[in-house]
Amino acid sequence: MPAGARRVAFGVAYDGSGFHGFAAQPGQRTVAGELVAAIRQMTGQQVACTCAGRTDAGVHATAQVVHVDLDEAFLVGHYGSEAGSAGQELPKLAESLSRQLGPEIAVWRALVAPDGFDARRSAIARRYRYDLETAVRPDPRRRATVWHLEEPVDLAAMRLAADALLGEHDFAAFCRRPPDKPEGPIRRRVVDAACTTPGEGLLRFEIESDAFCHQMVRSIVGTLVAVGIGRLRPSDVVALLATARRAGAPSPAPPGGLCLIGVRYPPALSGTWS
Amino acid sequence: MPAGARRVAFGVAYDGSGFHGFAAQPGQRTVAGELVAAIRQMTGQQVACTCAGRTDAGVHATAQVVHVDLDEAFLVGHYGSEAGSAGQELPKLAESLSRQLGPEIAVWRALVAPDGFDARRSAIARRYRYDLETAVRPDPRRRATVWHLEEPVDLAAMRLAADALLGEHDFAAFCRRPPDKPEGPIRRRVVDAACTTPGEGLLRFEIESDAFCHQMVRSIVGTLVAVGIGRLRPSDVVALLATARRAGAPSPAPPGGLCLIGVRYPPALSGTWS
Repeated sequence: MPAGARRVAFGVAYDGSGFHGFAAQPGQRTVAGELVAAIRQMTGQQVACTCAGRTDAGVHATAQVVHVDLDEAFLVGHYGSEAGSAGQELPKLAESLSRQLGPEIAVWRALVAPDGFDARRSAIARRYRYDLETAVRPDPRRRATVWHLEEPVDLAAMRLAADALLGEHDFAAFCRRPPDKPEGPIRRRVVDAACTTPGEGLLRFEIESDAFCHQMVRSIVGTLVAVGIGRLRPSDVVALLATARRAGAPSPAPPGGLCLIGVRYPPALSGTWS
Repeated sequence: MPAGARRVAFGVAYDGSGFHGFAAQPGQRTVAGELVAAIRQMTGQQVACTCAGRTDAGVHATAQVVHVDLDEAFLVGHYGSEAGSAGQELPKLAESLSRQLGPEIAVWRALVAPDGFDARRSAIARRYRYDLETAVRPDPRRRATVWHLEEPVDLAAMRLAADALLGEHDFAAFCRRPPDKPEGPIRRRVVDAACTTPGEGLLRFEIESDAFCHQMVRSIVGTLVAVGIGRLRPSDVVALLATARRAGAPSPAPPGGLCLIGVRYPPALSGTWS
């Protein structure tokens, strides 16, 4: 962190439909790009921003956590002398930044981060939700936020398959690796993986894990749906995990149904954001 | 109806965000305009289309009913000899039209209409839903489908106010009249008007009436919210109805929260679409 700077953590929600994902990319409209531009507009500072969980193009968040290092003099000048103290909430900063960003991105919390906080490295768990539309008729209003299934699914079979994910496993079969990345086990500890039916033709899958590899949730959902429509048996998911090879897994689910809904930090490092 | 034609009724859902309302308007993107263009593409025919309830710009539908008169030879040629018979379901026609239309509009039913059917004039009731977001944090994913309220609302007071709408009243206070339209009573019979909390920071208002005048639901919701935040009392709604003058009523609610969710016809004229 630069001298004279204070780390600020933001709680951020966004509709990912119009973005090429979270991470800044030259020439692309991204959530990080919009955040950095809005912060530059407000503070005159060019910041780098770090998030708890990078989301792909079309993926949403209700509870992304982002940190940036801001000039302490700016904070104290605009938000009072407490604005330099770790643990201080800065609701007015959250409001101003949110207004600056327009309706696709909302900033619902700004916190002067505890010492040692890093939005990505301090996180001990992330929670994602994936919404499947099981109604016979697609509702065009939610086409960017659900995956519409044409076929009926067997919820009990999907629940059995989801149970197989609990605990620590090598999730290599459910990860998209960059071509230059070495092969090898990708151990993750899944603490929750559950299918619910929150009503109105929706089937919801939620998963919480210490960390996620690239496209892990979408790969898992693609596989759960394959079980739901009878192309795989629940026991095949156990076998897939055991192979630790991507080749055998069904295609990942489309991005729109996915949403980052919570991030957990140790209590001393700001606790749970959701 | 032209000779050699058959009236077909369609069940249609749409995300109204990208449209200047249902009704065709030159130079504007409208739901009717898209339907007419898609039907021309499929059949070579230029049709007029009539809907059960015209929706304004930004208003959605899960169950709009639309009729058009199609060439009987086309129907029989493509969908078999039964396609000329009243009461015949034409699921393949619905599918083809839906595919032609893209993801903002879905056609979920096509029915060879019973004799004497008119999507607008035969309807005996329409049902609308309005979704209010009462969570402190707006969810950017649903910004085009809810009205986000900044202030907490008193649900019990809103329910009392909604009760006052039940039955037959002059709704002139809740109607936007075109400037050239004569003043006078606008009698409507409301058969249901209820507020529910379907979860996740949502407050839902549903209303069913024999018919609606222009902006009636949005005007009513604007007034219910004024009651919810304490600017009006439930009894003021009774007084407003009695004045039968628009001038005293609060501003209408924004269009995005509104959705046409059902249309009722007499049983012999195809019954309820929802």
